[in-house]
Amino acid sequence: MGEFELIRRFFVRSAGPQAAVLGPGDDCALLAAATAPSARFAVTTDLLVEGVHFFADVDPRTLGHKALAVNLSDLAAMGARPVAYLLALALPRVDESWLEAFSCGMHGLADLHGIELVGGDTTQGPLTIGITAIGEVEPAGALRRDRARAGDDVWVSGALGAAAFAVRQRLAGQALPASHPARTRLEQPTPRLALGLALAELAAQGMVHAAIDLSDGLAGDLSHVLERSGAATGGPLGAVLWAEALPFDACLSELDADDRFGLLLQGGDDYELVFTAPVRARDALERLSVRPGQVGLHRIGILDAVPGLRVQDGTGSERVLSGRAYQHFGGAVI
Amino acid sequence: MGEFELIRRFFVRSAGPQAAVLGPGDDCALLAAATAPSARFAVTTDLLVEGVHFFADVDPRTLGHKALAVNLSDLAAMGARPVAYLLALALPRVDESWLEAFSCGMHGLADLHGIELVGGDTTQGPLTIGITAIGEVEPAGALRRDRARAGDDVWVSGALGAAAFAVRQRLAGQALPASHPARTRLEQPTPRLALGLALAELAAQGMVHAAIDLSDGLAGDLSHVLERSGAATGGPLGAVLWAEALPFDACLSELDADDRFGLLLQGGDDYELVFTAPVRARDALERLSVRPGQVGLHRIGILDAVPGLRVQDGTGSERVLSGRAYQHFGGAVI
Repeated sequence: MGEFELIRRFFVRSAGPQAAVLGPGDDCALLAAATAPSARFAVTTDLLVEGVHFFADVDPRTLGHKALAVNLSDLAAMGARPVAYLLALALPRVDESWLEAFSCGMHGLADLHGIELVGGDTTQGPLTIGITAIGEVEPAGALRRDRARAGDDVWVSGALGAAAFAVRQRLAGQALPASHPARTRLEQPTPRLALGLALAELAAQGMVHAAIDLSDGLAGDLSHVLERSGAATGGPLGAVLWAEALPFDACLSELDADDRFGLLLQGGDDYELVFTAPVRARDALERLSVRPGQVGLHRIGILDAVPGLRVQDGTGSERVLSGRAYQHFGGAVI
Repeated sequence: MGEFELIRRFFVRSAGPQAAVLGPGDDCALLAAATAPSARFAVTTDLLVEGVHFFADVDPRTLGHKALAVNLSDLAAMGARPVAYLLALALPRVDESWLEAFSCGMHGLADLHGIELVGGDTTQGPLTIGITAIGEVEPAGALRRDRARAGDDVWVSGALGAAAFAVRQRLAGQALPASHPARTRLEQPTPRLALGLALAELAAQGMVHAAIDLSDGLAGDLSHVLERSGAATGGPLGAVLWAEALPFDACLSELDADDRFGLLLQGGDDYELVFTAPVRARDALERLSVRPGQVGLHRIGILDAVPGLRVQDGTGSERVLSGRAYQHFGGAVI
């Protein structure tokens, strides 16, 4: 049983959301305030476990950064402005220099986005970091997973595959040096918050339909958008991606094409945003892509009514992808 | 270094809360919405770790109940109406009957309070349960820890000590049967949400000043109220508790007095509310105490300007308490 099946079976109730505007299965839940129905809080939580999500010898400063970054990335994928976060931390022992470095990495990223740690819990236990991030989103700008439509363009930010490459090298006993850019991508990902806010503005005008952040690999994460949007509209929904349009990190340029596509499509930990938008949004998105300080955007495919995720190479031949995301219970480590 | 010192040193920033109305150190953080400044969301998170917060052989159904209950208790202590919660779950393996029972216990309590699971994260790892609970509170009704004043009465709900008794029997190799009421108190605590809401109504009229829930023992938890309220007013603040007024669970009646007071004052896991109120609120609180369906309330002492927590016995002689709460890093297990 994979993670999503487990959640569906034991934790998603048949009644559907009541108080929540949007319940489980998206990057964040959306909550309205009874005293202020126009407000929307976006909340998300992620658990990082030693040996599963990070190596035991990770630099605690980068770990503090990453633990917060992966949650902020979920807010970005919802188009939310981050407000605050909570930290639940289990530690095997009190190691002051470890805590100093960990908190420094976490506070550094928090300060960059002007958000604060408002509460939490600290306990003894195997090293586990649970962060809950809270943001605010304009109701019309929420970047949900279930609003993609056939005919939409598929866009992705940044360049993919570097983090997965760094993990692979490490597992093969050929760890990259700490200063290698791929290590930075793996250990200190940049949550695309400014992009999320810009996309939320476009979404409010119907110029962006759906978004998700890339934590488990492009194939798996885009499949979630297809499944949820297909279910929401009742019709089949699929995607064609153009192999040659997929942006890959420079560290992958020496690899052969098959190897590279494996990392691009199935590798995790990219924390870029993938989103769908109507054709009429192309000009606006191309302008956004070159805005100073903004990460580059790449149009990588198109949605259609043929179920499944396919990759088309330069000759026009298509290969169907399994859409398999990284599965925590699939036996993989990191 | 204890838990509170650790939090103060590494996780509380000098700048103080900005976006948050109330930052770390209370039962919940309070957040306002930029789009709706009158709304107040209360958020709290707690982590339960196997071998630290529960025994490895615990019934998963009661564990599901308790993991949610301890978070709802924090909402109750803030006077908040619960809205939704998130679950972050690390599991060593997928055990379907365990998950069935765990989720059943959790959903059962959630249904009782009409709240829903809106999101979360599931991963492989040592058994760890992180729940974040979200509630709403009227700004004037928030039951903060830092509003107690000299002259206030000290009140507590219910009866104390049963959960600590069940833990002690277990650690002494004399585990109580699963059906014993003290086991129920330990394993399926009742969050005092209705009481919290009633106290919030009184707080809005200035009839309740401060509150906290009892998770780490009366002495330690009341000391947090004294410290935070003392710091907020700038003056010394202490409390006298009357030994003979402390409500104890029936299962403690056979114990000798010293033993009983140890469990009452230092034992944890009661999940009752302790709160302070001006003298003029006595009638209102006595009426509340006998309202059908409401838990009984007991006036157990008084606040004064003498620092420290003292217990007065029937002869009028006083004993100073250390105020030591259960410390996760103090070597204690459960």
